[in-house]
Amino acid sequence: MKIVMIGAGNLATNLGKALLDSGNDILQVYSRTLRSASALAGLLGGSPVTDFGSISNDADVYIVSVRDNVIADIVPKLCRGREEKVFLHTAGSVPMSLFEGMALHFGVLYPMQTFSKSKLLNFNEIPCFVEGNDDFAFETVNSLAGSISSKVYLLNSEARKHLHLAAVFACNFVNHCYSISSDILAKHDIPFDVMLPLIDETARKVHVMSPKEAQTGPAIRYDQNVIRMQSDMLRNNPLIKQIYEYMSVSIHHTYKSEGE
Amino acid sequence: MKIVMIGAGNLATNLGKALLDSGNDILQVYSRTLRSASALAGLLGGSPVTDFGSISNDADVYIVSVRDNVIADIVPKLCRGREEKVFLHTAGSVPMSLFEGMALHFGVLYPMQTFSKSKLLNFNEIPCFVEGNDDFAFETVNSLAGSISSKVYLLNSEARKHLHLAAVFACNFVNHCYSISSDILAKHDIPFDVMLPLIDETARKVHVMSPKEAQTGPAIRYDQNVIRMQSDMLRNNPLIKQIYEYMSVSIHHTYKSEGE
Repeated sequence: MKIVMIGAGNLATNLGKALLDSGNDILQVYSRTLRSASALAGLLGGSPVTDFGSISNDADVYIVSVRDNVIADIVPKLCRGREEKVFLHTAGSVPMSLFEGMALHFGVLYPMQTFSKSKLLNFNEIPCFVEGNDDFAFETVNSLAGSISSKVYLLNSEARKHLHLAAVFACNFVNHCYSISSDILAKHDIPFDVMLPLIDETARKVHVMSPKEAQTGPAIRYDQNVIRMQSDMLRNNPLIKQIYEYMSVSIHHTYKSEGE
Repeated sequence: MKIVMIGAGNLATNLGKALLDSGNDILQVYSRTLRSASALAGLLGGSPVTDFGSISNDADVYIVSVRDNVIADIVPKLCRGREEKVFLHTAGSVPMSLFEGMALHFGVLYPMQTFSKSKLLNFNEIPCFVEGNDDFAFETVNSLAGSISSKVYLLNSEARKHLHLAAVFACNFVNHCYSISSDILAKHDIPFDVMLPLIDETARKVHVMSPKEAQTGPAIRYDQNVIRMQSDMLRNNPLIKQIYEYMSVSIHHTYKSEGE
């Protein structure tokens, strides 16, 4: 298919590369800055574009991968004059209905993964959640997603919203925990690398048991001495101290009814 | 070496098995309950013990792996009458000085990992942090640790305390984030398995970039619409809502000074 990519961030970069590699043709890459548009267009073999007037009418599909808080501004400008095309966005928490009244055929392709421009991923194992407003849009998004991933699921906007919230906990907040851990180690001149076997095993464990069965540590043992001491060690960083305390209380609450 | 294990929990089980497999002799396993003592003694080929009067005087090393909040009660009973032996504990947040006045030779062997009885781990890649109060204790713990792991580090009690706090964030709180994620998915009949590729990639990423470089999601993009909506989705669970909000604010604070 002929595709125009709107956006040149982490997700657009990884998705665009996967679409190109699976035989699609990326005509153009739009970004607000020429630098970003050119960088991704260079990778994908299309032309960089920085104004909506220059966007081609020749594509089959227009894929919007921009920050959730600018997507609503972009969609009307993008759809105008090419209402019969297929428009997709890639956001977890934005409903498909965003396109309503702007286009005839539209849908969502949400690849649930953490993307960085500097680390291009193999899409085959990335779960992609799709929906379309009619048969034509659905067939298009389903076929596009199927060309890059072996894990394509139909999911409506309401359920996707909850999936995205679950992903924020399982990825974004997890990574922030890594980051807090790394800051604590750095202050005591311990290299972050010593933490990697623990990080890996924590992730591996939930492949073979539920997160509840996998839980360990002072909070589930309700080791009050340790919890009090560790909380006190964070006294100079009130925000991290709050996170520590709420996490510990939440772990304790989750398990106390189940015994230990 | 001849070893008596005090404790039969997750850590004692994994450590005892590794010590046995590397050629050490586990004479006895002590636990408060015969059931726990017998289960681990069966695995390790020693005898189960449930009272301190029956603990053998024939071991070279006594390893205490019990909850942090009972360790102080156990140590005086354990050391009495065998002060010339080597005593070790395995806790991250308990100082080595706990043994002072109770024994002559003592130290710490802290294997930094998340252990479950049902998932026995290969110790070779597990970082073990050791210290000893004198040459004899240090040589003993260093050699024991070296027999089971290729990653043995000398670390004093004060630094180990910070290491343990860092591990609580990188493992225990991470797993609780998985657990919250799993609860959100379960409520919407989405299997937790769809989250595994994201969980794996989140862990893999910090092998090749720092957690700060790896951060993605609504909070770092400061997508206020999404943050507000997701926080509101958690309104029926005030504790999880607080965790969501503190995490989001903390991520935003961490990165706002660096642009983004």
